[in-house]
Amino acid sequence: MTSREPAALVELARQGSRTALARLLTYVESGGAAHRATAALAYQVSSPYVVGITGPPGGGKSTLTDQLISVALAHGSFDGSDAFDQVGILCIDPSSPFTGGAILGDRIRMQGHATNEHVFIRSMATRGHLGGLSLAVPDAVRVLGAANFRLALVETVGVGQMEVDIASAADTTVVVMNPGWGDAMQANKAGLLEVADIFVINKADRPGVRETRRDLDQMLDLGGEHEWRPVILETVATNGTGIDELWEAVVAHRRFLEDGRLEQRRRARTRAVLDEVLSATVRARVTGLDHGAAFDAQVEALLAGTTDPYRAADALLSNP
Amino acid sequence: MTSREPAALVELARQGSRTALARLLTYVESGGAAHRATAALAYQVSSPYVVGITGPPGGGKSTLTDQLISVALAHGSFDGSDAFDQVGILCIDPSSPFTGGAILGDRIRMQGHATNEHVFIRSMATRGHLGGLSLAVPDAVRVLGAANFRLALVETVGVGQMEVDIASAADTTVVVMNPGWGDAMQANKAGLLEVADIFVINKADRPGVRETRRDLDQMLDLGGEHEWRPVILETVATNGTGIDELWEAVVAHRRFLEDGRLEQRRRARTRAVLDEVLSATVRARVTGLDHGAAFDAQVEALLAGTTDPYRAADALLSNP
Repeated sequence: MTSREPAALVELARQGSRTALARLLTYVESGGAAHRATAALAYQVSSPYVVGITGPPGGGKSTLTDQLISVALAHGSFDGSDAFDQVGILCIDPSSPFTGGAILGDRIRMQGHATNEHVFIRSMATRGHLGGLSLAVPDAVRVLGAANFRLALVETVGVGQMEVDIASAADTTVVVMNPGWGDAMQANKAGLLEVADIFVINKADRPGVRETRRDLDQMLDLGGEHEWRPVILETVATNGTGIDELWEAVVAHRRFLEDGRLEQRRRARTRAVLDEVLSATVRARVTGLDHGAAFDAQVEALLAGTTDPYRAADALLSNP
Repeated sequence: MTSREPAALVELARQGSRTALARLLTYVESGGAAHRATAALAYQVSSPYVVGITGPPGGGKSTLTDQLISVALAHGSFDGSDAFDQVGILCIDPSSPFTGGAILGDRIRMQGHATNEHVFIRSMATRGHLGGLSLAVPDAVRVLGAANFRLALVETVGVGQMEVDIASAADTTVVVMNPGWGDAMQANKAGLLEVADIFVINKADRPGVRETRRDLDQMLDLGGEHEWRPVILETVATNGTGIDELWEAVVAHRRFLEDGRLEQRRRARTRAVLDEVLSATVRARVTGLDHGAAFDAQVEALLAGTTDPYRAADALLSNP
């Protein structure tokens, strides 16, 4: 592969080149013209089905994701629709966006599928994307779509607002916690109760499962009526217990989203993405203005009393 | 007074009408076209000298400000320059921006000067200003300037980031605290050590003054070298102890700011204001876009795969 042109890379990625796909994702992370060209191509293809997986660190998300990949590939479709023979996984750890940690993570995580040709795993960092990870990830999902992936798993580590936002920008959102009083409370505090379609109590061979389930149920009751009441499942990811049930719950939620609900959900998400891109674009323009000669000239005019800040801002914005 | 035109009101305010001045400040609080017209006139006149007064609630700031008004009016100038025969006071309590509390506060606070014709006291709230209080206050200061005030005191309650930003956007910033171990620590945490020109330990007839002074001195030492090392004063505002010394410290800082330092400080502040107005303007434009038919059309194009979010944002921003 010699070309670095996004159009050529998309074609190669579509034919199965992992190197081409990896380079396109690097473009997305880096921002700039190559990212713009990549986005223009990727958004022509419809989105893969996205399963978001999130929860506090140490809950066993990676092991669970690893197991989910196997079950998903074994089934190869949601109920006959949406056939897929490969799964793309994006791993997001915003706590280390600028270190090599995320890249190293690719190698040591998900050992079970590291060399499986039907599986593509990528840790996402952001090095220059206009809108940071919360926009880089939706773009990366679309790049997977353009490379013929029809199923994407997006795993985020941590329960900060950004992680929750990224993980919940999915078609089905899975929240992973462990038995114990604290986890349900923490999930509630982080807003995970509002975004979860499926709760997984992983490490369910430990004490406290019943209490965690009861706490979750009570909090869900307090949240009022749900068109889809989040399912609460128990798993032991390390030995595969409960993984089939998790996949069945994903399929059931996929089925629930038929009759226009998936379109509705994606429309809302599209609005949110466009809103965020707009904000990021104007923020970038303001920062650009802030460092220019035109800005300095308006500051001098202000000091001389020949303009006011509102006229000055309008003048700057009308001549970008 | 029948006119509600900003130009006529500025002329009346210049001639001493408090009603006209009050209406102009309401325009500033409310935003919109009347605010724009008011700003256009107010920024033609140079800024009054601004003394910011801030610190944790309950420290006695209002009583101290009240005493400072008397001393300032008794002197009537900074060292012969900047003569003034009236003082304008803006009171900012961001914790109650939308209640009537701030307005009521005008009446019950600063009893000593409530009916003094040389004193104008106004609590600022924001009801619609584009940039909230952090932009409404600088505008209000300029309106005072246009009404011939050459000295303005801006008192903020609380030690949140906004309060600190507003109070420190002054020519001289006074930080008021009380004796006791906690206040100096809190001031440090809130970033007040970086913005203070003068520290006042009010209620200095209580125990703990020496310790507070020592804590402040140590923290200032840790902060490295200062061109102007903040003065630490002791006052008992309720009986006037130390108020003359406070005024002398303000005058000394005013003198320090000669030789271009005042201009330098105001230039930096002007840049910050213009930056903030730019951000507020584009935020408002994005919000406007978000609710328009053009936005909806771009969302549909995105769902149809005929554009990407970045092209969509550019299209929206090029046709406001």
